[in-house]
Amino acid sequence: MYTNDAMIRVRYGETDQMGVVYHGNYYTWFEVGRSEFFNSLGYTYKRLEQEGIILPVTESHCEYIKPAKYFDEIFIRTRIDLLKGVRIAFVYEVIRKEDDVLLARGKTVHAFVNKELKPVRIKKANRKVWDILDRCVR
Amino acid sequence: MYTNDAMIRVRYGETDQMGVVYHGNYYTWFEVGRSEFFNSLGYTYKRLEQEGIILPVTESHCEYIKPAKYFDEIFIRTRIDLLKGVRIAFVYEVIRKEDDVLLARGKTVHAFVNKELKPVRIKKANRKVWDILDRCVR
Amino acid sequence: MYTNDAMIRVRYGETDQMGVVYHGNYYTWFEVGRSEFFNSLGYTYKRLEQEGIILPVTESHCEYIKPAKYFDEIFIRTRIDLLKGVRIAFVYEVIRKEDDVLLARGKTVHAFVNKELKPVRIKKANRKVWDILDRCVR
Amino acid sequence: MYTNDAMIRVRYGETDQMGVVYHGNYYTWFEVGRSEFFNSLGYTYKRLEQEGIILPVTESHCEYIKPAKYFDEIFIRTRIDLLKGVRIAFVYEVIRKEDDVLLARGKTVHAFVNKELKPVRIKKANRKVWDILDRCVR
Repeated sequence: MYTNDAMIRVRYGETDQMGVVYHGNYYTWFEVGRSEFFNSLGYTYKRLEQEGIILPVTESHCEYIKPAKYFDEIFIRTRIDLLKGVRIAFVYEVIRKEDDVLLARGKTVHAFVNKELKPVRIKKANRKVWDILDRCVR
Repeated sequence: MYTNDAMIRVRYGETDQMGVVYHGNYYTWFEVGRSEFFNSLGYTYKRLEQEGIILPVTESHCEYIKPAKYFDEIFIRTRIDLLKGVRIAFVYEVIRKEDDVLLARGKTVHAFVNKELKPVRIKKANRKVWDILDRCVR
Repeated sequence: MYTNDAMIRVRYGETDQMGVVYHGNYYTWFEVGRSEFFNSLGYTYKRLEQEGIILPVTESHCEYIKPAKYFDEIFIRTRIDLLKGVRIAFVYEVIRKEDDVLLARGKTVHAFVNKELKPVRIKKANRKVWDILDRCVR
Repeated sequence: MYTNDAMIRVRYGETDQMGVVYHGNYYTWFEVGRSEFFNSLGYTYKRLEQEGIILPVTESHCEYIKPAKYFDEIFIRTRIDLLKGVRIAFVYEVIRKEDDVLLARGKTVHAFVNKELKPVRIKKANRKVWDILDRCVR
């Protein structure tokens, strides 16, 4: 199972008055994880969009275990959870670099759609991308 | 079952290059729904925090049905899904005002904790708040 | 000089670990002020974009006087500072509703551009919009 | 004049429906530049806050030259512009890594304050930090 680690540093603006990272910002980190996941496969999500396939999120979920704090170094560990028909799902682990502690766990589900937002079977629509992604789940 | 509607207008900065609202921003709207829910009960979340009880999110979920767009007027319909021991959960419906269409559905789970982030039984810790919230789920 | 007041309520996610609103978020509020300014003229910015004219920001500035806090009700008082050729500038006052205290003051400068991001003289490109805006500065 | 380069990768959520980075997000990048600037001096801003000195922004400014786009690699070039009494100002250059093009230029002014938000003369309040910062402007 192919997994990619992206590294981020917590920004001040990502915290809230509880003194920890605002829960909604983890979804931006998942997106960073996903973007770097594609990049690590040699096929950026940017390129995928340029070729007319976009991946809107149809569902997102996060479980918060321990709070992330300002200036923490964080790994976003990303892998594909499901690849089937017009859908792809990613799962994420948010890990504090300093002590390897798991801070959060998440999931996003996406549809492959074209520019008119019609669902497309990625296997047919872009066989190269399908092959690259399919290899990740074996 | 007590339900509160908060109204927001989609901000330009909430959109992304897909031309629709970035999925992560729905969680901020849920927070607006929650804040206005407390406010509608005559006991603001601000006051709750000042009295030493905070409600960190332990889990969040969103299902995206149709995209929200810039300058849409949106209702965030909020109600309590669960109130038990040290936990409270809210569910949300994101509804486009113009045509009453459901755009998204979400849920957040929270712990009642004190300033040291220790879980507290709200019924014991703040009976008045318990009574107010408990009435909402009947 | 035509002025419009937009009202917002400070969101939890807009605060940072200083316990006040993160300085960068005032620019989102200015955008809200601007959007509501257009709306109050009966010609939304959304419509302007649909007609092919967009207003990217070329310069922005903010002076912070007193901090805004979670759940404060805030007025964003907006007016046009300059309208000339391919440029428009707005100035903003951020005012706490409760006691009418000025929290911040800001400015944004914009270019009128078409979809290819070429500057356009708004007076020629869209006379109706020019007339509406020009009336605001008299 | 001491200068530090921080590197960031543009996030999808930082774009807006114009297809470029939302103007307000450059201020978050300046904050990243500032945080990494302190870090490069061996004295993190996190530590400064822990020692009771915080640096709220009293003024911010940005001039936008060319738009940053999703997945661009960007340098935030940061240096101190002024250090005097209770004030410090930073200036920033936002540079696209790929072709070294200047995308934006910015400035933030800060007050040194204590936890009660009273201004403090940093030279007196924390001589070590003063020495480190003062060396940067020579």
